[in-house]
Amino acid sequence: MDIFERSLERHRETHGKIEVRSRMRLETQEELSIAYTPGVARPCEVIAEDPLAAWDLTWKGRCVAVVSDGSSVLGLGDIGPAAGLPVMEGKAALFREFGGVDSVPIVIDEHDPQKIVALVKAIAPTFGGINLEDISAPRCFEIEDALQDVGIPVLHDDQHGTAIVLLAAVMNAAKATNRSLAQLDVVINGAGAAGRAICNLLTCQGQGEWCIPVKSVTVCDSRGIIFPGRAGNNAIKEEIAKVTNPEGRRGTLHDAISGAHVFIGVSRGNLLTAEDISHMGEDPIVLAMANPTPEIMPDEAIKGGAAVVGTGRSDFPNQVNNVLAFPGLFRGALEARALRFNEAMKFAAIFAIMESVPHPSPKMILPSPFDRSVAPRVAAKVAEAAKASGACDPL
Amino acid sequence: MDIFERSLERHRETHGKIEVRSRMRLETQEELSIAYTPGVARPCEVIAEDPLAAWDLTWKGRCVAVVSDGSSVLGLGDIGPAAGLPVMEGKAALFREFGGVDSVPIVIDEHDPQKIVALVKAIAPTFGGINLEDISAPRCFEIEDALQDVGIPVLHDDQHGTAIVLLAAVMNAAKATNRSLAQLDVVINGAGAAGRAICNLLTCQGQGEWCIPVKSVTVCDSRGIIFPGRAGNNAIKEEIAKVTNPEGRRGTLHDAISGAHVFIGVSRGNLLTAEDISHMGEDPIVLAMANPTPEIMPDEAIKGGAAVVGTGRSDFPNQVNNVLAFPGLFRGALEARALRFNEAMKFAAIFAIMESVPHPSPKMILPSPFDRSVAPRVAAKVAEAAKASGACDPL
Repeated sequence: MDIFERSLERHRETHGKIEVRSRMRLETQEELSIAYTPGVARPCEVIAEDPLAAWDLTWKGRCVAVVSDGSSVLGLGDIGPAAGLPVMEGKAALFREFGGVDSVPIVIDEHDPQKIVALVKAIAPTFGGINLEDISAPRCFEIEDALQDVGIPVLHDDQHGTAIVLLAAVMNAAKATNRSLAQLDVVINGAGAAGRAICNLLTCQGQGEWCIPVKSVTVCDSRGIIFPGRAGNNAIKEEIAKVTNPEGRRGTLHDAISGAHVFIGVSRGNLLTAEDISHMGEDPIVLAMANPTPEIMPDEAIKGGAAVVGTGRSDFPNQVNNVLAFPGLFRGALEARALRFNEAMKFAAIFAIMESVPHPSPKMILPSPFDRSVAPRVAAKVAEAAKASGACDPL
Repeated sequence: MDIFERSLERHRETHGKIEVRSRMRLETQEELSIAYTPGVARPCEVIAEDPLAAWDLTWKGRCVAVVSDGSSVLGLGDIGPAAGLPVMEGKAALFREFGGVDSVPIVIDEHDPQKIVALVKAIAPTFGGINLEDISAPRCFEIEDALQDVGIPVLHDDQHGTAIVLLAAVMNAAKATNRSLAQLDVVINGAGAAGRAICNLLTCQGQGEWCIPVKSVTVCDSRGIIFPGRAGNNAIKEEIAKVTNPEGRRGTLHDAISGAHVFIGVSRGNLLTAEDISHMGEDPIVLAMANPTPEIMPDEAIKGGAAVVGTGRSDFPNQVNNVLAFPGLFRGALEARALRFNEAMKFAAIFAIMESVPHPSPKMILPSPFDRSVAPRVAAKVAEAAKASGACDPL
């Protein structure tokens, strides 16, 4: 049996991956009266007087909802809410195991962005944070934007979790090859949720003056290099075009990466060859995230002269895995009782991930996804950044 | 410290009462690949092809949402969603401990019944059942009715859970005093969620011909006996008036219970005296559910001649507690993969609870809430009834 059939069998055995447990014993009348009626009336009254008390007296302060409409699940596309549930349960299990965060999957049979926004706002009193997951672009942007004032941190992990780990990877790869970010010309292939977010981080969109942009970013989609006014550009692609491709180049992905120092693929498998890599600039950094088949296989990339290669896969060095970011990000936000995520918190996570590998080398730019010290380190830095940057203060 | 302060302290210590655990180990790459990417793609695909597979491959088949808008919490009234969360968590803990059912509290910041219906429909793919809780009347009726076609069982426990346990109590109290239901004149004080539901069961509304009604039911509210055309009757009270009070009596609660055999209070404390009970018919059965202070204290009721007294409290005999019903009701529905609750399932629960006390006596008409054999017995009977009565067949 391959990994897919082994997974199916295991899911049949366990009937899903998560379960709910009681933290209070309910064996005696006293215990029942404390957990439930009549005693429970008192914590209810205290919260009615001071809604913030819910963070102390209920699971709100340690619980994140993983919300998806199933519209963009893994590489499977719009398979719907029920079929997306195994992924959301998996995410909840990872939150628990890696971040010590309680987490509940909520899959929703609703595609209209405004209705999804209303639904998340309505259930928000239950949770201390919302992880939006596997919602298709460009709907994911509209939904996340509209939820920033809901009073708990909301983050679309496919955008920001991925971008955070990728930027940590790029920075440590630069360090491993003795370069600064400001020396790097970067090509991103893919202008979806993750592509846009990594582009924004690399070009310091929405950042303070302290952010150091890379030398240049060029973004490609399936039709090649994105430039202003290109026929068929949607609003997102026009926005990308404004801050990238400074020389106004046109052409294919192959044209774009010629001379570039960094390739970031958040697209699909088997797009590049060793020859493409050989046309890149000095010491190429190749981060080919398509799953299960990367944009180029690591051995091909190395044949073409790549100095550093990372993928989304566990069977090659330098796995770029969201699990390095999201458990610690949310745990830190919960610990600080942040009301939203901001750029300072995202950069705190990036630096915490980077610092988890004190001496990066081409074969090790990121910590192992199984390094249990990463999430607590990320959480501590994110909580500190949240407090210092005003993310805990009402708008 | 009294029970309320002890409860508050315990809630502060535990930060709420429930937590989420992973059922799969995530220590190795193989384990991560099975629980999450890439392996998880296969269960997703299987559910995309056959949505019913979600019952096997996810927690859907063992998970119930406890949904509330916090509009009618305990005796505290409309305290809102955040303040209602401790009660919903308590319910989730009881589901787990008594029914072996996973359960998630969802408190919602939304009062419009139609929007609540839309929200519950949208999140339904995540769950195998929905327990509506602490939603004020008459909104609770509209909401529950509109959710009967959602494809998973939806039940407002304040109506049906309470009514099921009360009917089991009445039937065993009748048995303990050598009478049949058909001999009993019943007065219900309270025309809210629970009052309406117990009235419907006692008068066999919506039941088959096999249902045996009591001799008569009279329902009172704060303005006394409900009768057709009474000024200010809403639609629910007019509906109640049609099937109760056969002699068309008018008057107060005190008038109503004169000569009656059973008093069921789902109202508020300290309404009756020993003298009221002394005017009831032979061997009065008094079920005074108001919490924490019953409509009449047990010693007063006995002084007035009551043969059987039950309350909602644990410190007197015959505690009428919903926990005897809801864990087994939902567990049975989940085991049968029922698509809805029906009257056959409710009566199966009533008989299972009754049979938990094979030889009822005035001091013991119901099993202890801590009798862990009750929920499995209720579940088995409910599952059997669900299959036999078509509750598992698509509409």
